[in-house]
Amino acid sequence: MKLRVSISGVESGGKPIVALNKYDADEIGVTASGRIRLRLKKEITAIVNIATTSVKRGFIGVNEEVREVLGLKPNSVVDVEIAAFPKSLQFIRYKLAGRKLLYEEVYEIVKDVVEGNLNENEIAAFVTALHVQGLGLDEATSLASSMVKTGKQLKFRKNIIVDKHSIGGVPGDKTTILVVPIVAAAGLTIPKTSSRAITSAAGTADRAETLMPVNLGSEEMKKVVHKCNGCIVWGGALELAPADDVFVRTEYSLHIDPLLLPSIMSKKKAVGATHLVVDIPTGRGAKVKTVGEADLLAKDIIELGRRMKIHTHCVITHGEQPIGLSVGPALEAREALEVLMKKRNVLDLTDKACHIAGAIFEIAGKKNGYNLAKDVLRTGKAEKKLREIISLQGGNSKLKPDDLVTGDQTLQIKAKKTGQVLWMDNHILVEIARASGAPKDKGAGIVFNKKCGDKVTNNEILFTIYAEKSRKLSRAQDILNEQEPIGIGKTIEMFIHTVKEPPIVRRAFVLDR
Amino acid sequence: MKLRVSISGVESGGKPIVALNKYDADEIGVTASGRIRLRLKKEITAIVNIATTSVKRGFIGVNEEVREVLGLKPNSVVDVEIAAFPKSLQFIRYKLAGRKLLYEEVYEIVKDVVEGNLNENEIAAFVTALHVQGLGLDEATSLASSMVKTGKQLKFRKNIIVDKHSIGGVPGDKTTILVVPIVAAAGLTIPKTSSRAITSAAGTADRAETLMPVNLGSEEMKKVVHKCNGCIVWGGALELAPADDVFVRTEYSLHIDPLLLPSIMSKKKAVGATHLVVDIPTGRGAKVKTVGEADLLAKDIIELGRRMKIHTHCVITHGEQPIGLSVGPALEAREALEVLMKKRNVLDLTDKACHIAGAIFEIAGKKNGYNLAKDVLRTGKAEKKLREIISLQGGNSKLKPDDLVTGDQTLQIKAKKTGQVLWMDNHILVEIARASGAPKDKGAGIVFNKKCGDKVTNNEILFTIYAEKSRKLSRAQDILNEQEPIGIGKTIEMFIHTVKEPPIVRRAFVLDR
Repeated sequence: MKLRVSISGVESGGKPIVALNKYDADEIGVTASGRIRLRLKKEITAIVNIATTSVKRGFIGVNEEVREVLGLKPNSVVDVEIAAFPKSLQFIRYKLAGRKLLYEEVYEIVKDVVEGNLNENEIAAFVTALHVQGLGLDEATSLASSMVKTGKQLKFRKNIIVDKHSIGGVPGDKTTILVVPIVAAAGLTIPKTSSRAITSAAGTADRAETLMPVNLGSEEMKKVVHKCNGCIVWGGALELAPADDVFVRTEYSLHIDPLLLPSIMSKKKAVGATHLVVDIPTGRGAKVKTVGEADLLAKDIIELGRRMKIHTHCVITHGEQPIGLSVGPALEAREALEVLMKKRNVLDLTDKACHIAGAIFEIAGKKNGYNLAKDVLRTGKAEKKLREIISLQGGNSKLKPDDLVTGDQTLQIKAKKTGQVLWMDNHILVEIARASGAPKDKGAGIVFNKKCGDKVTNNEILFTIYAEKSRKLSRAQDILNEQEPIGIGKTIEMFIHTVKEPPIVRRAFVLDR
Repeated sequence: MKLRVSISGVESGGKPIVALNKYDADEIGVTASGRIRLRLKKEITAIVNIATTSVKRGFIGVNEEVREVLGLKPNSVVDVEIAAFPKSLQFIRYKLAGRKLLYEEVYEIVKDVVEGNLNENEIAAFVTALHVQGLGLDEATSLASSMVKTGKQLKFRKNIIVDKHSIGGVPGDKTTILVVPIVAAAGLTIPKTSSRAITSAAGTADRAETLMPVNLGSEEMKKVVHKCNGCIVWGGALELAPADDVFVRTEYSLHIDPLLLPSIMSKKKAVGATHLVVDIPTGRGAKVKTVGEADLLAKDIIELGRRMKIHTHCVITHGEQPIGLSVGPALEAREALEVLMKKRNVLDLTDKACHIAGAIFEIAGKKNGYNLAKDVLRTGKAEKKLREIISLQGGNSKLKPDDLVTGDQTLQIKAKKTGQVLWMDNHILVEIARASGAPKDKGAGIVFNKKCGDKVTNNEILFTIYAEKSRKLSRAQDILNEQEPIGIGKTIEMFIHTVKEPPIVRRAFVLDR
């Protein structure tokens, strides 16, 4: 059936959606949430909405996703027919029935996710089934391979391409901004792609963006890596493993992340990594709560790496409090820059960065990795390398820490008693940083004066909240009125809380990975 | 934030959806698929789409669902704010984590489903988790009770209200059209609500609609039942257990039906049933494949009935071939009418109807149920009662079988060899009937000359396909060119098929219940 296009101008988060008049829909034989195939030179499958008044007979309303793919204009005439039932849906149904999926079946599902042939319902059911039934390593491998195959892949002419990844969950983790220049300065190739924050207060891409442009295309990125061995770019513009971007939206809304492992490995494989170090922050308030659990996760990551032909080591790190002394994009970038410039010494941050960089050195065949990393940092080679990267990515290589603009609205939080910092609650601290505007307001966040183990006297400053807007600062204050982010005491207090009726347990969910 | 309404005219299958300009969405703090609260006298929660061009700043595009609830006009000004995180979503996440849900938690989910506070993703995840993890009887009871409580309920001033239900899956099952008048003629009250076909060739509401109006409101329905003890109306207009209408859409798209039991029981409880007989058609090609499986399902149904205070019996019936000699709304209604008028004798149909009616008599305290049913049928009381119902529901009580219009396009299918009918494939027969136009084209369907066990000689007519449009008749022919719906032979043939590589197994899915 030929239908005339009307452009709705609505974006639906990546999903191709059309609106048909009820009578045309009947004629085509499709109902709401069904699938039709549109053709005008190219083809696309779109999910159907039914319109009663707004779309006249003979017309088809298309959203931005459909308009773009087919290059439609108002009144373009497209050929429309009912879409064949996607095979992949049958495979999703196998999974619902408790079957393990074969590679070809997983590939078909991933391909249809990328091409928009599956509706929200169906993707949510697949992700839920993976979560509830668990996915074995065979399925994880199939997913990772399929996610690589359905996206773009980078090629560097090197025998060894190293990479690092953190499964996330700890605020203030600016380790990558130190690790990339340390590793690149020592002559290894590290084409680092990073993500923006989803549930956290800053992703590495958000932090790095305050130092330099990070939205590079793949050709620009390759040039940077070719010239200086490393880069820190946002992965989102590179179309690596695009299926993950769809899955992650569903996972976010459901607060589950069964695709954690395939997601990590597919992105690493797509940049061509041959050697990989994965950081697993562990402890109360981190994504992984115990060392035993972390070791089991590491086992799966290493085996999945082996199957994907990426030599992988895992580093289990302490994740019970923020890394370093700041949280928020610009504040963290400034801290990283100051450490690289040796303007200040932040012990836990330096220690973590050198352990990760050291593990990368060792997996790539170098000896005494930790000390080598320390050396590269101490001699200023890492700072020089970061400035080279900044300059090649289009930033100002002479950047000073004070050039990084932080929020001018501040709020100092003081201790209410004397004692020792016993614990810091990562989730509440992230909530405060996000309320203050991070990661969207780059200058927002938190700077700590005290961390776990530090002695505190009554009325001493614990931390300072930075915001760009006073309205957001007061939202952060509201959270502080309700919840305590830092515990101070002489000894651990025994009482946690009383439960008198079924409580509503809200667990913090960390999706950044 | 105050926004000016623009009416999109789009219907989204019951879900309240709005489109916000990107900047306004940022200002409100909501992203695509998030939730906002709209207020104008009444309130509604709606799911957010983001528009770039079509919705200007300061405006909000609303779909028909939102427009109707708030009674909006173009340029109405509504108050918009980010919706509080629904508690029910937390409970869905418990379920994803493998917890059993408490009544209060299930109720909260069902309420939010009815009020449109949960998006497609979230509902699909809930339904998937119920399917994958299974739902215990406690959860089934909570679901059924919550579905009743969130919908309308009918009240009849009788001590005994009987009802019947078939879990469906067998084509041609016009039993209800016989059972209701038999039971009502014997003095029992049976306020029967029926559904339209979803995946089948005809639902009881589709069949009955060719005899009389079935879209009655609850007051009209009550009047009919008050006057003649029974009715056969479409349940969809009565807003009984509206949550089920939402769940069923998700189940349909995923081909799973974890809510089968709560769905049945909630509809029965909502009409006030005190005594219930559930028919479980069993066998190859039916929903339940074995008698053992049927007995286990019956156990759950009876126990769920006990908890819902509905005294319930189950009747396991033979479901390996169509019931009677016709499939399709008008053809089936005609067959039922002819049997009631004793113009013809259809053994299996009469036998089944009398067994179901007999079970209803016995559960309501009468003796010799089967014989009593036979008697009511034989003496013409059942025909008289059906005509009374037809007349009270606004139809023509003098209706003759030939008044029922059937498709004038026909196709006779003949036997290709001599032998015996060994099997009939319900799913292929339904596919053929639907291709020929049923249930939408009321006169479309199939009339059988032969059924299992019948002797057939080469070239003898097996069945006739009826259609209202020749285009649809040829679609039915296409199916016959590919698949054999009826097996004829002298003895069972041993060979089924060979599997040489992983096959794509498409199972027919029957959702009608």
